[in-house]
Amino acid sequence: MPPVNLTTLDGVSLDALTIGNALVDVLATVDEAFLVREKIVKGSMNLVDIQRSKHLHSLVNSRTEMSGGSAANTAYGLASLGGRAGFIGKISADRLGESFSRDLEAVGVKFFPGATCATEDTGRCLIVVTPDGNRTMNTFLGAASLLDAADISKTAVQSAAVVLLEGYLFDKDAAKDAFRTAAEYAHAAGRKVALTLSDSFCVDRHRDDFLSLVKNDIDILFANEDELKALYQVKSINDGLHQLRDDCEFAAVTRNEHGSVVIDGDEVVIIDAEPVDSVVDATGAGDMYAAGFLYGFVRGKPIEQCGKIGSLVASEVITHMGPRPLVSLTTVVPNDLLRV
Amino acid sequence: MPPVNLTTLDGVSLDALTIGNALVDVLATVDEAFLVREKIVKGSMNLVDIQRSKHLHSLVNSRTEMSGGSAANTAYGLASLGGRAGFIGKISADRLGESFSRDLEAVGVKFFPGATCATEDTGRCLIVVTPDGNRTMNTFLGAASLLDAADISKTAVQSAAVVLLEGYLFDKDAAKDAFRTAAEYAHAAGRKVALTLSDSFCVDRHRDDFLSLVKNDIDILFANEDELKALYQVKSINDGLHQLRDDCEFAAVTRNEHGSVVIDGDEVVIIDAEPVDSVVDATGAGDMYAAGFLYGFVRGKPIEQCGKIGSLVASEVITHMGPRPLVSLTTVVPNDLLRV
Repeated sequence: MPPVNLTTLDGVSLDALTIGNALVDVLATVDEAFLVREKIVKGSMNLVDIQRSKHLHSLVNSRTEMSGGSAANTAYGLASLGGRAGFIGKISADRLGESFSRDLEAVGVKFFPGATCATEDTGRCLIVVTPDGNRTMNTFLGAASLLDAADISKTAVQSAAVVLLEGYLFDKDAAKDAFRTAAEYAHAAGRKVALTLSDSFCVDRHRDDFLSLVKNDIDILFANEDELKALYQVKSINDGLHQLRDDCEFAAVTRNEHGSVVIDGDEVVIIDAEPVDSVVDATGAGDMYAAGFLYGFVRGKPIEQCGKIGSLVASEVITHMGPRPLVSLTTVVPNDLLRV
Repeated sequence: MPPVNLTTLDGVSLDALTIGNALVDVLATVDEAFLVREKIVKGSMNLVDIQRSKHLHSLVNSRTEMSGGSAANTAYGLASLGGRAGFIGKISADRLGESFSRDLEAVGVKFFPGATCATEDTGRCLIVVTPDGNRTMNTFLGAASLLDAADISKTAVQSAAVVLLEGYLFDKDAAKDAFRTAAEYAHAAGRKVALTLSDSFCVDRHRDDFLSLVKNDIDILFANEDELKALYQVKSINDGLHQLRDDCEFAAVTRNEHGSVVIDGDEVVIIDAEPVDSVVDATGAGDMYAAGFLYGFVRGKPIEQCGKIGSLVASEVITHMGPRPLVSLTTVVPNDLLRV
């Protein structure tokens, strides 16, 4: 299929609308004794309840807050590239909810919060950093995980050339309905539907649902190599790519230092990783790759260039701590790749 | 196409017959002053005439000799894997010609020398190694480059499941005829014809001839990334692979630390490089990759396994000086990959 510029479709005012967990990242430095006292395994990601979350938050000082979550990060990256991004996620009417909302809008992401959650606090992830640079995450999902079909604005979805769904939300049945609803709205208006698989354990837990979604509703799949193998239960990336070509028109499979592989119909396109001096923290690499890819995709760029932009922006975020770029991403991508 | 075991074809007694430059590698250690005195640029490959060759050889002591040349190396690698290999190349009835012949047969490669050359000495490559480990090559092609169609034994070609042609020979018109003759014999008996492009400068010099050969006569192409790009005059490996898929049924494109990409009809299969502690000397990596690939290919192994065997044997030869493996290649490849 020849590349099509989707930004010029009738009624499109956003390049992409992403849907995912609305989480505030709270970063704090702690000493090693903190982890010992709180019995937290260094480097792990722990789901915690509200009591535990409040307890941990009460123990840390001098913290920084920023909106986070995989899909929201992608929206952030897209805005940083000069693209037009929107986000749907569920927050509560509390201080962190306001912080999340304000932070996203400050970077130019249009936030469609849906119905405010009355029963749970806004989700947050306490990221504690020890002196050795290790990050340990304690996530309270809260309101974020209660997203349901009623939170999906048809107008918002149809205002975007692409809607991107975050796989993490698949742990809740109501969120699955929200996904199907969003996909329906998008396709009814001739938009494209993208999915990011998020996590191989999440794929293991919901394989049949993911497979059915990928086969029937998804035009663009983002996955890393482990998630792809988990989805199709294969040992070789090539076996996974072979099946993926039958199921999805477009896909991007990220492979850390091996770069990525992009699929465009029958074409398998190889994208080398951008060389970096050293990888400090890979958090957010997949989110930024998706941002770069979608920036190019909606502008009708050849698929190889979409992957190249993805690689370039991912290479920025892995050279420092944190899932968000430290510079405007327009400075990371050569002008000739950004121009339409 | 499902994999077919070609070793069981009627009349097949060799896995592969390779055709290329018959060269004796002569290795000698020299000091830096030698290069200065002889005005040789360190690390270069120089084509020299017989006078210059004899002059340089007369200056070095304590040298080691072994048969070399790209196609002969591949035959050597195939034999080292336990495969059945043959070689056609032109030598003279001199001491180096005898040495070449004896050396190949000692490792189990069947040598079909064709008509002995009366006008030129056996080709040789003087490789001088300086104390810093650098290799500088001085090649006198001699008899090797005079191979012509009359040297191609129909019986020998038809006794092999695959015939492999070495691109370096394309610098001589008579050798081009020899290639076409060999391809004709092979196809008449239902055998496969493979080509290795050898060198991107060689491809530049003979692009139209190579393109016509690849389109019309070649079933399996071996190339590195630079040679592929030179062949199709493209900047992106993906553009090259796209065109290659139309021209050849099978292909393997090697990419140094990025591994290789294998083509099987419409399938594009990714093979990661085998990790090595450090690359000492990449000479011979492509030759050994082809040996490993062909070992699997003629035994009907899935194309991904063919590439994997190629990667494994290439990873041995790059960890030390010299284009030949230092150990039996059966020790480098796991048994389950070697077994039919």
